[in-house]
Amino acid sequence: MSKTRVVIALGGNALQQNGEVTAEAQKNVASHIGEVIAKLSDRYEIIIAHGNGPQVGNILIHEETASTSSAPAMPLETAVAMSQGQIGYWLSQAIDNAFARRRQHKKVVSVVTQVVVDPKDSAFRWPTKPIGEFYSAEEAVKLAKTRGWEMREDAGRGYRRVVPSPRPIDIVERREIMSLVQSGAIVIAVGGGGIPVTRSKVLKVLRGVDAVIDKDLAAEKLAELVKADIFVSVTAVPNAYLNFGQPDQIALGMLTPAEVFKHVKAGHFGVGSMLPKIQAVAQFASKKRIGIITSPENLELSLKRRSGTIVQG
Amino acid sequence: MSKTRVVIALGGNALQQNGEVTAEAQKNVASHIGEVIAKLSDRYEIIIAHGNGPQVGNILIHEETASTSSAPAMPLETAVAMSQGQIGYWLSQAIDNAFARRRQHKKVVSVVTQVVVDPKDSAFRWPTKPIGEFYSAEEAVKLAKTRGWEMREDAGRGYRRVVPSPRPIDIVERREIMSLVQSGAIVIAVGGGGIPVTRSKVLKVLRGVDAVIDKDLAAEKLAELVKADIFVSVTAVPNAYLNFGQPDQIALGMLTPAEVFKHVKAGHFGVGSMLPKIQAVAQFASKKRIGIITSPENLELSLKRRSGTIVQG
Repeated sequence: MSKTRVVIALGGNALQQNGEVTAEAQKNVASHIGEVIAKLSDRYEIIIAHGNGPQVGNILIHEETASTSSAPAMPLETAVAMSQGQIGYWLSQAIDNAFARRRQHKKVVSVVTQVVVDPKDSAFRWPTKPIGEFYSAEEAVKLAKTRGWEMREDAGRGYRRVVPSPRPIDIVERREIMSLVQSGAIVIAVGGGGIPVTRSKVLKVLRGVDAVIDKDLAAEKLAELVKADIFVSVTAVPNAYLNFGQPDQIALGMLTPAEVFKHVKAGHFGVGSMLPKIQAVAQFASKKRIGIITSPENLELSLKRRSGTIVQG
Repeated sequence: MSKTRVVIALGGNALQQNGEVTAEAQKNVASHIGEVIAKLSDRYEIIIAHGNGPQVGNILIHEETASTSSAPAMPLETAVAMSQGQIGYWLSQAIDNAFARRRQHKKVVSVVTQVVVDPKDSAFRWPTKPIGEFYSAEEAVKLAKTRGWEMREDAGRGYRRVVPSPRPIDIVERREIMSLVQSGAIVIAVGGGGIPVTRSKVLKVLRGVDAVIDKDLAAEKLAELVKADIFVSVTAVPNAYLNFGQPDQIALGMLTPAEVFKHVKAGHFGVGSMLPKIQAVAQFASKKRIGIITSPENLELSLKRRSGTIVQG
């Protein structure tokens, strides 16, 4: 009997518990995630996607602060690639080690992944995603001029660069990822939403663009392309909620994609937090499959549909 | 008829022609490499290994210079992982695009790769490989104290950190790489010699170590493990030479591993430049296979054994 195929999207903050951001601290958190994944892999075929918000933020701060002519800062899309190497290494080693402790020897591999976006995506006209360092108003004006960056004031904390967050339309390495899944490997892919690239119309030539793709939307696209049975977005809370944070908040259990879209319209989900997750999960579920929102602790129970928010089409 | 399987090791400086180190310049060089690889892939199954010297050097300079408590510097082994994401992205995109221009659609994929070293390797007692920034004598003393770094004076240019360069003994992702090769993919792996890890004796748990593995030795190990027919070390010069740089220098053409080892003993090859390459090539050839040293321009001819230094066992 073939195993149930699951794509698990881990939040960008999943590796930084208690705000600890050293490599050592993040590896320790990865180690716990590795144990969970190793255990699940007895029953499920697993593909992992992950965020990179805090990590790529720090890479950009280092690159920009210490940029010189002999060691120039790397652009955003290359920084995303660097964060894939970094986080992919931590996660694959953690899962490998969890298998070793269980005396199992399964394949685990991290794949550098490019995700295709449409150059005509309206996000390119209206960049909204703040990234990297905070700057003063004077610095912001200068950066806008010298680097062509779009700068925006961020809630009284200073100015930040904002970049487009276009929708993912394809995954360049989807066939390679599929080969690995079929060979029995646990695959880590589309890290940080993937390295954003455009594909030219006639020649199909790829070109990196400075943008950030939402990790949950990219993971959902991956789940579609690898024909997953279940797509799970793992986050800090055990469910999606109506009236979140209010006295009358309601944890959502089982529901249909149509019900999700109704709640989305009613404005129940936070933009930039639960909204992209629940939208990705509902989009996947609408293809007659199962989408789940849950916390790391409840992941195993949720896959048995006994916990979390379960959207079923 | 099955294709000849070739592991090609690209030098760390291969992407930085004319000393240009911006992402854009390195991508342009990668684009030429992509064209060469795409053309070769009609006749050969190709696996690519690459150096990362200049790239990881710049990553370390950025990480160390701009390190703060909220954005702490990543350790060397994680920086190697970051450079694998960076260079692996550039190379895989360049090869993808070369195929697109030829209206071909072959698989290309970069794999984050850990390479196992022996914690008892004598290199850990005698670190020799200089990396990262130059420091003053005072700074060097401080870094030795606060970070436990081994510092060494570097030819009058200041003090640099030196790290161990242990021998590669295994590649963690070898089965995953083999699956990809067998699925017809061009695989980019063991970037920068691989992320150096040790493997514990009983439980076989992996742990990153601050070291740098020689790219040619790691690529040779990869060539063994994927059962390559040919191992090529691509470098700036078209051959290995006797009396290199002297009026009586002799370009080596065809020779046996035994002849190479004789020349090594006679001190013909530069430590840290030609020596590791010719040793890796001879080691591979001694397994009744073919090892080649050549330049990018002569790569195609060399694979037909009409150019370059060809070592045959």
